[in-house]
Amino acid sequence: MHPQTRLGRFEHHTEWPLAAVALLFLGLYSAQILLEPRGSTAAAITDAMRALYFVFVVDYLARLYLADPRAKWFVRHLFDLAIVVLPFLRPLRLLSLAVVVEVLQRAVGDTIRGRVIIYTVFGAAVMIYAASLAMLDVERHAPDAHIKTFGDALWWAITTVTTVGYGDYTPVTGEGRIVAVALMIGGVTLLGVVTATLASWIVQRVAAEDTANQTATWAQIEELREEIHRLTKLVADDREPAYGEGREGI
Amino acid sequence: MHPQTRLGRFEHHTEWPLAAVALLFLGLYSAQILLEPRGSTAAAITDAMRALYFVFVVDYLARLYLADPRAKWFVRHLFDLAIVVLPFLRPLRLLSLAVVVEVLQRAVGDTIRGRVIIYTVFGAAVMIYAASLAMLDVERHAPDAHIKTFGDALWWAITTVTTVGYGDYTPVTGEGRIVAVALMIGGVTLLGVVTATLASWIVQRVAAEDTANQTATWAQIEELREEIHRLTKLVADDREPAYGEGREGI
Amino acid sequence: MHPQTRLGRFEHHTEWPLAAVALLFLGLYSAQILLEPRGSTAAAITDAMRALYFVFVVDYLARLYLADPRAKWFVRHLFDLAIVVLPFLRPLRLLSLAVVVEVLQRAVGDTIRGRVIIYTVFGAAVMIYAASLAMLDVERHAPDAHIKTFGDALWWAITTVTTVGYGDYTPVTGEGRIVAVALMIGGVTLLGVVTATLASWIVQRVAAEDTANQTATWAQIEELREEIHRLTKLVADDREPAYGEGREGI
Amino acid sequence: MHPQTRLGRFEHHTEWPLAAVALLFLGLYSAQILLEPRGSTAAAITDAMRALYFVFVVDYLARLYLADPRAKWFVRHLFDLAIVVLPFLRPLRLLSLAVVVEVLQRAVGDTIRGRVIIYTVFGAAVMIYAASLAMLDVERHAPDAHIKTFGDALWWAITTVTTVGYGDYTPVTGEGRIVAVALMIGGVTLLGVVTATLASWIVQRVAAEDTANQTATWAQIEELREEIHRLTKLVADDREPAYGEGREGI
Repeated sequence: MHPQTRLGRFEHHTEWPLAAVALLFLGLYSAQILLEPRGSTAAAITDAMRALYFVFVVDYLARLYLADPRAKWFVRHLFDLAIVVLPFLRPLRLLSLAVVVEVLQRAVGDTIRGRVIIYTVFGAAVMIYAASLAMLDVERHAPDAHIKTFGDALWWAITTVTTVGYGDYTPVTGEGRIVAVALMIGGVTLLGVVTATLASWIVQRVAAEDTANQTATWAQIEELREEIHRLTKLVADDREPAYGEGREGI
Repeated sequence: MHPQTRLGRFEHHTEWPLAAVALLFLGLYSAQILLEPRGSTAAAITDAMRALYFVFVVDYLARLYLADPRAKWFVRHLFDLAIVVLPFLRPLRLLSLAVVVEVLQRAVGDTIRGRVIIYTVFGAAVMIYAASLAMLDVERHAPDAHIKTFGDALWWAITTVTTVGYGDYTPVTGEGRIVAVALMIGGVTLLGVVTATLASWIVQRVAAEDTANQTATWAQIEELREEIHRLTKLVADDREPAYGEGREGI
Repeated sequence: MHPQTRLGRFEHHTEWPLAAVALLFLGLYSAQILLEPRGSTAAAITDAMRALYFVFVVDYLARLYLADPRAKWFVRHLFDLAIVVLPFLRPLRLLSLAVVVEVLQRAVGDTIRGRVIIYTVFGAAVMIYAASLAMLDVERHAPDAHIKTFGDALWWAITTVTTVGYGDYTPVTGEGRIVAVALMIGGVTLLGVVTATLASWIVQRVAAEDTANQTATWAQIEELREEIHRLTKLVADDREPAYGEGREGI
Repeated sequence: MHPQTRLGRFEHHTEWPLAAVALLFLGLYSAQILLEPRGSTAAAITDAMRALYFVFVVDYLARLYLADPRAKWFVRHLFDLAIVVLPFLRPLRLLSLAVVVEVLQRAVGDTIRGRVIIYTVFGAAVMIYAASLAMLDVERHAPDAHIKTFGDALWWAITTVTTVGYGDYTPVTGEGRIVAVALMIGGVTLLGVVTATLASWIVQRVAAEDTANQTATWAQIEELREEIHRLTKLVADDREPAYGEGREGI
């Protein structure tokens, strides 16, 4: 983002490696939750995930160390801290996969709105998938839980993120509710992004509709400036011969 | 939309025929779901719908073939693919009826905001009706289903699309949930469009209120340019006689 | 609104009388629903309400007659038709009380945003009250109904209009659901108006923050025009004496 | 806010003392609700809270007295009146803690959008916490209540403020419902603020993207004005020597 600072350079270089780690983490986490392996496989997956998780912790600490001013970075990245510290929020670390969006962007174009749309769709998909996995993980074996299959968890996540909130499936454990709150905040932001993008599009279109009332643009002001430049040159040229004439007239 | 490209010309020419096919499909689908015919009538309707559905598949393939670049079109029209491939999403193909909006537009005027409003109202109505039919189709005979009449389905669809989500009627089958997710995405977009249209209207009105702080417009810059033109002409005219005078003065 | 047309003049003159009729209607309707009178009182109230309702029908027909073009007015005022035709939507006619807002406006100021806020707050209050009355009316005596007191109806209306939609109280009759749908549409619009007003405010504040990047305004363009006028006059004045001088120089 | 008026000066000077009172009130209220003290401790807390509450009443009356015009202030601060008069809304008085935001602002920067974000996050947190306490207070001992622990109350508050509204925990008492309505209004506004801030950001970014179509700014108009000034000076200078020359030519 800011390759001119030390933190910026660090983030630029670790972007793709971290996305690879996140993808591996996603694969192992999905396997652990959806396949429910037992015995040595389960132990191996747990060990591998612990190692990958250690990478995230190191990344967080490295970024905190490189940040300047550090206190400001800490306050602004409390969410990153929560993801690192709270085990059941860990899947949200997958949002670092957002770097994959760069590949998708080539197919969609490169305007601000295009990028906002692609980040929103991709971010929403990752958020819903990760929250479903996390919810299934913490609720599945709770007594009186409603969410017992991945299908239920996915259905719950989508009804939550769109703020529809039927309430036919709701988390009953404390951890499940923290995951739900993270997803609700995501949902409110998602709604906001969708609306804001549409608003930006409509405002632009309404403005483009009526040429006479269109907002004056930089391009127009530049044309005006050139016109005034030509005029100034004309007046200046006019002055020169006037002097000459004057002298000739003497 | 883009009559200058081959795809644009194709879409321009097939617009109304496809709307007719969609309307016929809607009629047959409504009859099939709401009247629950039996025997040869049911078989005839099923055959007719299969034929109409084949038209949509051909249309999708033709558009994919004509698109340039094809990969970009494919990525941008994944939703069209889903409608063609997933049988219970087929009713959403009715959204191609949106072309009927052209007729309604004559009654409402032709500004961007007018068009956005009419597309929103019409699109929401078609989406709610089609989703209700599809939901009734997949849920009706499911054990433990809540949605057993068209009234229930319509009520469910409206509470969902407005994101109210009472949860008194919710889908219980996988197919029903996919229909619901499509409707929720539609609902979030609907909310966004309503808000964005209002925002555009309020922003414009607030700007119009205070003349002194109104945004400079193209029309004003044009007036300024004319003024400078007149001035330039005056200076240029001034120069000519100045030369003449000079000569006379000799 | 448009005092220059016949419809505009009609609406301007009937504004306050209709508000009085609406207020009377509101009082009688509230009495009928909340006090549940019996015998001759009930009959008297019913008769009075029928008479007031007749005023609304006449008003609708008069406006339809005066409208030009009539077809366009009809399409744009389908909601008014629904209010006149569907008995349980009649309370929504109270929205014509919005004219009372004119009095409130004097306390709040007269900017566009001030007016939007006051219309929103007043409109939401009337809509919630009227929908609660209508809901109580149609649900109260239905078997298996959840909404049996005015408190329940009010609680249901507020959870619906904010799109929270707990679902602890939901309508079970067809008429109740139509009232609910009207309220949901109102709720979606309400959310949109709140967001749009805030967006307009933030956009304006962000623009005002950074003077150098502020949008060019009418006032500035006017100043520029005056500057150019002065310059043009200077050049024109310059030309006159130049001629004179020239002659003197001979 | 407005240090030039008497009310403004009063509010400026009482800002931090009132925040201290609010913080103390929050601590006592939290202790009272969460620890459920008995005997003399309970009595002491109740007395202390009554004294602090008296400060709020005095503050409200003082502001009403100093306001000019008083009627307008009264209408615009009905919510403040509700907080003072309705005992179970009292915790919302904690919103006066917003002044603490000034400290946080130094860490986040001082742009309009930065301030809007920090007020939103802080305001939402205080609102959710205060509403949870109030809800627990009024519901806890009600028969058939769902909300019996602080965890439940917090979960209910978050699902409500995001308008998800599962309906798994809902208030059953009248007081609880009034708290809920206050929170819903807060939630609708919260959603609006999030969306509006995002919209403002996207509109600005989209505008910044395309230099040629960027809106003309104050800075540009100023440059134009300077250019014209230089031109005017050139013409005026031109005129002086022209006179001089003329004289010399005589």
